[in-house]
Amino acid sequence: MLNAELSQVFTKFIAEREYICLSTINQKGEPETRAMLNLGNEKLFPDLRKFYCDGRFAAYFSTNTESDKMSQIAELKTASVYYYDEKTFEGLLFVGDIFAVTDKKTKKEFWQDGWTFFYPDGVEDPTYTLLEFVPKSYKHYDGNGNFHIGDISADKK
Amino acid sequence: MLNAELSQVFTKFIAEREYICLSTINQKGEPETRAMLNLGNEKLFPDLRKFYCDGRFAAYFSTNTESDKMSQIAELKTASVYYYDEKTFEGLLFVGDIFAVTDKKTKKEFWQDGWTFFYPDGVEDPTYTLLEFVPKSYKHYDGNGNFHIGDISADKK
Repeated sequence: MLNAELSQVFTKFIAEREYICLSTINQKGEPETRAMLNLGNEKLFPDLRKFYCDGRFAAYFSTNTESDKMSQIAELKTASVYYYDEKTFEGLLFVGDIFAVTDKKTKKEFWQDGWTFFYPDGVEDPTYTLLEFVPKSYKHYDGNGNFHIGDISADKK
Repeated sequence: MLNAELSQVFTKFIAEREYICLSTINQKGEPETRAMLNLGNEKLFPDLRKFYCDGRFAAYFSTNTESDKMSQIAELKTASVYYYDEKTFEGLLFVGDIFAVTDKKTKKEFWQDGWTFFYPDGVEDPTYTLLEFVPKSYKHYDGNGNFHIGDISADKK
């Protein structure tokens, strides 16, 4: 699949999906998956579009600093992100690395007012972590029996 | 969470969900997730209910023998299964082992007529594999900020 085609698939998923499945590997070497709010959803987070519109395939997640996934990615940053459409059975899997964003400006730009429910002290709350996932490879299933697999770095050259 | 409570959560998810996220670990040690048809869905597969009604927490999946997940679980049977409700944000993660069912009678009982689309030679088609997932531990999120984590074997004693 050409980079432009992948970009089209990704753009649709990231703009429309409400939740994304994030998978990490725990300390026992077992895969753990959980649904995460998709901060790229254009209806829910219109002010965050700029982070998703520069042709990259990154995904961002807000999470609690004390969550299990944080101790897991501290040991192993390898993760996957899975986008899926129940109606068409189309799915897009990205495998790559995930890490906490340390840049305060970016963390502030992502901050949403309602998040004081989770992080009472606001954007400076030490339990507020912003995660960035950067994919290295992908698997795409078009819902009609066709798979495409590729490396993202090589694809971008 | 008591075994009976977990059973209640599981029974609801397995009966209602159309798809389940199955995660495995690939040969590079990366987590891979894909949506799988939930054979426990009571509307779609009423004839398969008996496999889900004996108090166990097993899940079954049909898959292609030549799929990536098959070579992955041949090397590492550790997998997770994730049930999720977009409306309530409730989620149930099971971590355990997955393996191919070799018993011909069971494979035949699971077989659905429409599957000749995927496996043209029917139930005897060598590309038809029935997978059984047996969970060892769970994480439950009730959608309201409460997590429950536990071991299934210990729970059943």
